[in-house]
Amino acid sequence: MTNYDTFLSQAAGAMRESAIRRTGSILAQNRDIISFAPGYPAPETFAWGDFQEIARELLSGADGSVLQYGATRGYRPFLEMVAGIMQRRGVAPSIDRLLVTTGSQQGLDLVARVLLDPGDVVLVELPTYTGAITAFRNVRAHMEGVPQERDGIDLAALDETHARLVKQGRRVRFLYVVPNFQNPTGLLIGLRKRRQLLEWAASRDVLIVEDDPYRELYFEDCTTEADVRPMKADDDDGRVIYLSSFSKTLAPGFRVAWIDAPAPLAVKLEMAKQAADLCTGVFDQRIVYEAARRGILDRQLPLLRRHYGEKRDVMVAALKAELGNDISGPDPRGGFFLWATLPPAIDADHLLDRAVQHGVVYVAGSAFFVNGAGRNLIRLSFSAPSHDRIREGASRLASAIREELAAPAQAEPSARASTL
Amino acid sequence: MTNYDTFLSQAAGAMRESAIRRTGSILAQNRDIISFAPGYPAPETFAWGDFQEIARELLSGADGSVLQYGATRGYRPFLEMVAGIMQRRGVAPSIDRLLVTTGSQQGLDLVARVLLDPGDVVLVELPTYTGAITAFRNVRAHMEGVPQERDGIDLAALDETHARLVKQGRRVRFLYVVPNFQNPTGLLIGLRKRRQLLEWAASRDVLIVEDDPYRELYFEDCTTEADVRPMKADDDDGRVIYLSSFSKTLAPGFRVAWIDAPAPLAVKLEMAKQAADLCTGVFDQRIVYEAARRGILDRQLPLLRRHYGEKRDVMVAALKAELGNDISGPDPRGGFFLWATLPPAIDADHLLDRAVQHGVVYVAGSAFFVNGAGRNLIRLSFSAPSHDRIREGASRLASAIREELAAPAQAEPSARASTL
Repeated sequence: MTNYDTFLSQAAGAMRESAIRRTGSILAQNRDIISFAPGYPAPETFAWGDFQEIARELLSGADGSVLQYGATRGYRPFLEMVAGIMQRRGVAPSIDRLLVTTGSQQGLDLVARVLLDPGDVVLVELPTYTGAITAFRNVRAHMEGVPQERDGIDLAALDETHARLVKQGRRVRFLYVVPNFQNPTGLLIGLRKRRQLLEWAASRDVLIVEDDPYRELYFEDCTTEADVRPMKADDDDGRVIYLSSFSKTLAPGFRVAWIDAPAPLAVKLEMAKQAADLCTGVFDQRIVYEAARRGILDRQLPLLRRHYGEKRDVMVAALKAELGNDISGPDPRGGFFLWATLPPAIDADHLLDRAVQHGVVYVAGSAFFVNGAGRNLIRLSFSAPSHDRIREGASRLASAIREELAAPAQAEPSARASTL
Repeated sequence: MTNYDTFLSQAAGAMRESAIRRTGSILAQNRDIISFAPGYPAPETFAWGDFQEIARELLSGADGSVLQYGATRGYRPFLEMVAGIMQRRGVAPSIDRLLVTTGSQQGLDLVARVLLDPGDVVLVELPTYTGAITAFRNVRAHMEGVPQERDGIDLAALDETHARLVKQGRRVRFLYVVPNFQNPTGLLIGLRKRRQLLEWAASRDVLIVEDDPYRELYFEDCTTEADVRPMKADDDDGRVIYLSSFSKTLAPGFRVAWIDAPAPLAVKLEMAKQAADLCTGVFDQRIVYEAARRGILDRQLPLLRRHYGEKRDVMVAALKAELGNDISGPDPRGGFFLWATLPPAIDADHLLDRAVQHGVVYVAGSAFFVNGAGRNLIRLSFSAPSHDRIREGASRLASAIREELAAPAQAEPSARASTL
């Protein structure tokens, strides 16, 4: 028999299944579970009829390039369209900074491969997005966490952490942040702090990776477009690598996202992408391009803000009604997620089995922390379920939590966290 | 100003633009160029009407999961369909060995990341597929070339190379081969040699990566299905990681391919894919699944064999008529490529500029050699151009070659190869 362990790379030896993807397997097994776990957009909001019409036209056969291999950088009119989007976000557009990616996850992966050698340091927030953790871990980078304040990452702690690492002789390559409706906390980085982060990055010669998938989904009762201005818009020094996506605004099924990076880095990211998948699906790019060109994207955005804002309202009210003071957390001002603190006695990883028995799943907070914290935190996604399902899910979650609180104290800490 | 060079990973520092992708840029600049360069399938063969109908049904909105995120492993009915394809290729199917990939290029990248640490050795043929070279180089592996015979890789040279490397203390992880209609040579590995390779891999404890995108495109005047039997079909020892794709049989625009790997490796490849792009586009997977389920794929295959076989005939005849003994090479028995030897005086990299002036492009042979060889070899792809364009392209190529042969000897060797 072949012993495969002896063949694995060091990176592969350290690879783990992601917590979010793991709950996906639970869902695949049981249809009666309400999922607050993955950040799935609501399919009923997708522009099905428009996509149908666009696909019909593209697949007429009149233009053979629709189903052909394409340029690694991206379909040129698509890139021009993205440049227009960047301009509307306040960023002076430049085609030679843009690169299409096969979802933003590929963007994170390419950034990791182009910027990180094993042992290099990435500064991340506590907590931070799991997909970024996975991408950085797979190139064997070292992630160092920095606590958050209400308006995002703690600048004093950031600089202290950086200074300590430099003193240790570590190479700090970049800071990774999700400034708008962060996954998982839903927090916004304040506008003043964004400026300060840019200044800090310049003074410490560090790059910033700004991951911005949710920015269009601001809830208009409490947030304006001014609040979600990208740091990239004020990046006079060329320190920001900006990632965004159409997965949350049109549909994730197309796997179309983009990077806006300083041109010399964009060249390298393109080369990394050549080896990674040659090109992002041209058919997908052209559907997205047509949806933007025909005004479908612009028409969707206000609808989506309302749709997800209402779901946020339903979840906040339902959790309050069901759990009262046994659950707390900031009200989301946009995005897909509610980040909730449970009573200190609860271990969210341990609670998950009980929650599944009650027919509801979430992502345990520990998945988002690179320092082992997050024990009694959970991420609840309100984006996909209907209002009724959100209410029913909140009720099931409350039952699970009440049961857990009434159960005898656990003999030992759960071993689950290490396998997530 | 930010100095980006100081931020690049070692892998990024060594990244180069691929020769094939570079000719893509030339093509994008000039519409009057006949391209024998990239291995593009012929769009007029695509099943446009069927895809249109399938897309219309999938995008009705009745099933929201069509445009949602999907499982990293792949859409389950898609994987079951692929298992059926593997069975028809002689491989006992097993779902837990299968993984969808975003094109076979991603498959190569995932294999590289899961199996290779910097400095590890991959054995490749001389010449071999450039996309594989790029994927292996991007994880900083060392590639060692092994010469080919008429029936594929030279077994004696393979074992000598392996022994030498082991003696040097290098870790040889796998042998990479394209057994059917190899890119770029068009060669088939003989059936007896396939068996011998499996035995050799077991005796030396090496894995085999079998890349098989062209196997369905055998030309029935000289090749039968028996000739293209995968090594994976006789892989009793679980040493073969098998890659194949729908890009050459349905359309590359969908970016849907697969890996059949020993189950413990498939688990790791799936984890690597989670970080690389979360999932392959679900819409694309479902189109491909429907095309297979409805018999469109099976209907296409004999048409494609005829289509590309005829184009092979046209190119072989045109080159013979235009260039006579100034060009030679084996007649392709399948696939997309004719691998041609030019007169010894010609440097194919140097000739390329002149060819572009005459309105034709190809890929210079040096791109496919990891040892700097291939100076007077070229890869000509007959798959995409029409019969008339193939004839016209052969005529243009002949003019360029005649001019080059008549030109004064070059003062120094071209510096082009190193930048390709």
